[in-house]
Amino acid sequence: MPEPVADDLHKLRHSLAHVLAQAVLNLWPGTQIAIGPPIDYGCYYDFLFAKPISEDDFHAIEKEMRKIIHQGQTFRCDELNTADARKYWKDRKQNFKVELIEDLEKNENVRTVTHYANLGPKGEETFADLCRGGHVENLKEIPADAFKIMTLAGAYWRGDEKREQLTRIYVAAFPSGRELDEYLKMMEEARKRDHRKLGKELDLFTFSEMVGPGLPLWTARGTVIADEIEKLARETEAEGGYLRVRTPHIAKGKLYEQTGHLEHYKAAMFPPMSFANEEGEYYLKPMNCPHHHQIFASRSRSYRDLPMRLAEYGHCYRHEESGVLFGLMRVRSLTMNDAHIYCTEEQFENEFNAVINLYLKYFALFDIKKHVMRLSLHDPKELGKKYVPKQDLWIKTEEMVRRAMKKNGVHFMEVPDEAAFYGPKIDVQIWSAIGREFTLATNQVDFDVPGKVGLKYIDSNGAEKVPLCIHRAPLSTHERLIGFLIEQFAGLFPLWLAPVQVGLLPVAGAHEDSAHDLEKRLRAAGIRTQFFDHTETLGKRIREGEMWKIPYLAVIGDKEVHDKSVTVRNVKTKKQTTVPVDEFIRKTTDDIVERKLEPGIG
Amino acid sequence: MPEPVADDLHKLRHSLAHVLAQAVLNLWPGTQIAIGPPIDYGCYYDFLFAKPISEDDFHAIEKEMRKIIHQGQTFRCDELNTADARKYWKDRKQNFKVELIEDLEKNENVRTVTHYANLGPKGEETFADLCRGGHVENLKEIPADAFKIMTLAGAYWRGDEKREQLTRIYVAAFPSGRELDEYLKMMEEARKRDHRKLGKELDLFTFSEMVGPGLPLWTARGTVIADEIEKLARETEAEGGYLRVRTPHIAKGKLYEQTGHLEHYKAAMFPPMSFANEEGEYYLKPMNCPHHHQIFASRSRSYRDLPMRLAEYGHCYRHEESGVLFGLMRVRSLTMNDAHIYCTEEQFENEFNAVINLYLKYFALFDIKKHVMRLSLHDPKELGKKYVPKQDLWIKTEEMVRRAMKKNGVHFMEVPDEAAFYGPKIDVQIWSAIGREFTLATNQVDFDVPGKVGLKYIDSNGAEKVPLCIHRAPLSTHERLIGFLIEQFAGLFPLWLAPVQVGLLPVAGAHEDSAHDLEKRLRAAGIRTQFFDHTETLGKRIREGEMWKIPYLAVIGDKEVHDKSVTVRNVKTKKQTTVPVDEFIRKTTDDIVERKLEPGIG
Repeated sequence: MPEPVADDLHKLRHSLAHVLAQAVLNLWPGTQIAIGPPIDYGCYYDFLFAKPISEDDFHAIEKEMRKIIHQGQTFRCDELNTADARKYWKDRKQNFKVELIEDLEKNENVRTVTHYANLGPKGEETFADLCRGGHVENLKEIPADAFKIMTLAGAYWRGDEKREQLTRIYVAAFPSGRELDEYLKMMEEARKRDHRKLGKELDLFTFSEMVGPGLPLWTARGTVIADEIEKLARETEAEGGYLRVRTPHIAKGKLYEQTGHLEHYKAAMFPPMSFANEEGEYYLKPMNCPHHHQIFASRSRSYRDLPMRLAEYGHCYRHEESGVLFGLMRVRSLTMNDAHIYCTEEQFENEFNAVINLYLKYFALFDIKKHVMRLSLHDPKELGKKYVPKQDLWIKTEEMVRRAMKKNGVHFMEVPDEAAFYGPKIDVQIWSAIGREFTLATNQVDFDVPGKVGLKYIDSNGAEKVPLCIHRAPLSTHERLIGFLIEQFAGLFPLWLAPVQVGLLPVAGAHEDSAHDLEKRLRAAGIRTQFFDHTETLGKRIREGEMWKIPYLAVIGDKEVHDKSVTVRNVKTKKQTTVPVDEFIRKTTDDIVERKLEPGIG
Repeated sequence: MPEPVADDLHKLRHSLAHVLAQAVLNLWPGTQIAIGPPIDYGCYYDFLFAKPISEDDFHAIEKEMRKIIHQGQTFRCDELNTADARKYWKDRKQNFKVELIEDLEKNENVRTVTHYANLGPKGEETFADLCRGGHVENLKEIPADAFKIMTLAGAYWRGDEKREQLTRIYVAAFPSGRELDEYLKMMEEARKRDHRKLGKELDLFTFSEMVGPGLPLWTARGTVIADEIEKLARETEAEGGYLRVRTPHIAKGKLYEQTGHLEHYKAAMFPPMSFANEEGEYYLKPMNCPHHHQIFASRSRSYRDLPMRLAEYGHCYRHEESGVLFGLMRVRSLTMNDAHIYCTEEQFENEFNAVINLYLKYFALFDIKKHVMRLSLHDPKELGKKYVPKQDLWIKTEEMVRRAMKKNGVHFMEVPDEAAFYGPKIDVQIWSAIGREFTLATNQVDFDVPGKVGLKYIDSNGAEKVPLCIHRAPLSTHERLIGFLIEQFAGLFPLWLAPVQVGLLPVAGAHEDSAHDLEKRLRAAGIRTQFFDHTETLGKRIREGEMWKIPYLAVIGDKEVHDKSVTVRNVKTKKQTTVPVDEFIRKTTDDIVERKLEPGIG
């Protein structure tokens, strides 16, 4: 059987939501049904149960759903005027549906709606729902082994915490049992690799209720990772001709009036710090660009200074709603691998593609095998609202980006109405080792703000010109990238990123001195170590080292002391190899310097 | 003649203020006189002139002052009841003096005051002032060649901008003409080394009116210096067993309620960012300690974890009044070489002295030859106001610090009423190469806040204890340290700190390739370079390199290309030396790694 295409999958999941509701009503007549849309891995449906249900009921619901599917029910579309539709649901005491129809009448002036009825083997109506359509023809098209009820969650009717709290039933659904299994395996793995769970276990970061939600504090081990990533960025950017700068985390309100941030971006900003006197208002910076623009503007610039690439791991603050905050992935403090490239139109293509190549370099380093670049464009209808109203420049820069990417042979897709307010952008989506998707980084072109804030350079003919500005952050933010890397590597980082690179385990007290000597030599070579003294059994210490996900555990016993060797346990492969101490240090140093993905011993 | 000691110097400067006022009244009778205290390099006096004076009048005033001194006037002390004193000044139409006496009567319930009258050669009264005393016996004791009027400034009566604007005349005064000359030379040198002037010329930092006063933006060249200092701190702190952490720049108000900052330190904080809803208020952090305490508190700790040294180049914000902001020396954003050492009482002495030794290490590195440590103590009268009200702990920790410093053989002086609100501190004062004094860094003991915020560890007997906390910042802030270093090195930094280490100057077009080859080799060795292409004359390019204060200018001509050598101009010594390229790279690399004060070539 050919696999359904995306659109068929949507129909399948949508149909399955009807099956779910029907099954629930069969099992618990009188349950109030709310809404049930398809989602990216299946569907859900919201119910108001008379008596709460639990995971123990999943089996019965699934069984009932399979029964319905096996009956080969079909769909019939009924067009009703809203008065009849209201009566239909009122008769069945389904008040949520009545409310939905009343709102359609009131807010959208709707006078007819459609119901989709399921028909049983004898043509009898088994269930109907208020629905716009998009279903399979026959429920038998839904593979009965390719869905699974995943979880229950509470959800307010219409997301309004003052309304009824409903029970949401999530169902995973795929075109085949094999794909469902793959998804379930990925989810199981994702649970194990959950960056919030591992972040706590490996003591990488913490949150404090006193500091505030969405404001991670990096502990010592997590700071090592952030520092290593920053070092990578510095080295790469120095090679790429970037200049590092440092700017404060606040600025006067008038800066953001000038740049347009207060007009277009205020909702994402923290409220101002207001002085009663003429000092006025200060804001936390939501982006680094306005500050970098001030540095560009601090001296007169000529074409000889361009391209000028100002880089900063700038720490920005954005006010995400507390409800959407999620571990390191959605935060309020963002340590950004930021840079702004001021260039001429002629330089744009080279600069833009150099940035794209940076991304590719980093993908290899972090073992990112699947990625997609999305070119986010403006929406002409939103000019003057979400986007600065300069249509010609929008079309021109969008075409510049398109041409640059095509010339560089980069695959990309185009998405309307997702640009930055000042120009088109590239969103980079990546997939982790277990197949989960992340939006990592953006690369934006700004044709508007440089002119607005008065940036200029003198061209080779002595004329004043406004530079273009490329905003780029290929390593995203520390928060999002490290959140991704924890999942990507399941907490067992490549040597160069590992908070502790080598654990030292003397077999017994007699080997402590030798182990300390080795520790000293490793530290002198810049290798991060942790000492596990012999007060615990070797087995227990090895388990502890494994729990901390230290790449190498170095065991030193009689033989090793005698041979000037060390027995190295590779925690990932669980292989043990005895190597001369000198070789161990040399090889480990090399692997770290080269930022190898896998430790070379064992 | 033996030089007057500090107390005599104070008398001399105080007497000179009387001379200044008498001279002004002799020259411009009817001038209103306000107050005139001694200051650390002389004295000043505030006047309300009928007609404005200018620098052109300095000579006449100095001449009149010398005349008064040469007369050998003496002082007579008159005790008056305040009614008589008021009448005395009212008769002379000196309204400021009348106001001063009225305030003494009203606010301090004073009923008698003293006047100090000057008596001329015939015993006649030449001038009198409302004054508490402390003068030379005879004005002839003031060396007539050891003072100089320095400058005029505007000053509001009683510092109140709603009151009269007065003219303040500043006078430098020393025990001898030689010392005055030294001071004038130092001031002249300080003007040349002014960090604001050099910061602009060398493009190290900038301020933006749009970002706000007191918020420096570090440009690319200045960022190199900050980065090098941070690298130094990282290396030193890694050796010292510190753990680096990273914390956000904001926190909820309740954190600062708990730590006592909102009670004791609010005046120095930026106003809050207030949400209308239950999110409450957020503040910019004025110190890093509360955040570090949260990291300490994020896991249970045992005596085995102590001492725990959490380090961060934390960026704090303090709201200094705009009037006191001064270049990099008084700012609102402070990038602090911060760390907090959590330790037991038994560990305190070792930890404290390790910190003191860090200071001494850094002093040597930056060629700081003169320094003083001041132990700032609490004031018992201010307990419960400026200081947490725990007298026993104040006395105990002050004694702990005293003992630790004595044991380490550190010279220090004690100053009451200058402690932090949570414990005693060491203020470190240093003197720059031209003899100017800077307060660089502090080292504080905190016996209060750790307990307040619930920090604890389990000691070896299983009991819960509260750790002590040492706050330390031996490299001060980037802002203050770099401000100092600019003056210290007059902008010509040691190789390791120099934004550009080697300038490359091909003699002619034919030598550009070789110069570029050398540049590549230098960059590969991690040496920062700048290329001066041959479009300008060699002389002009050398002057440009000198203007940028690049330590080495590397000239490449025919001979150098042929010999694989380079002619190195040492910009400080102005010596030129021709050395083989390999040797140049090796020696320069070594000098940088060893952080040598002087470049080794030339």
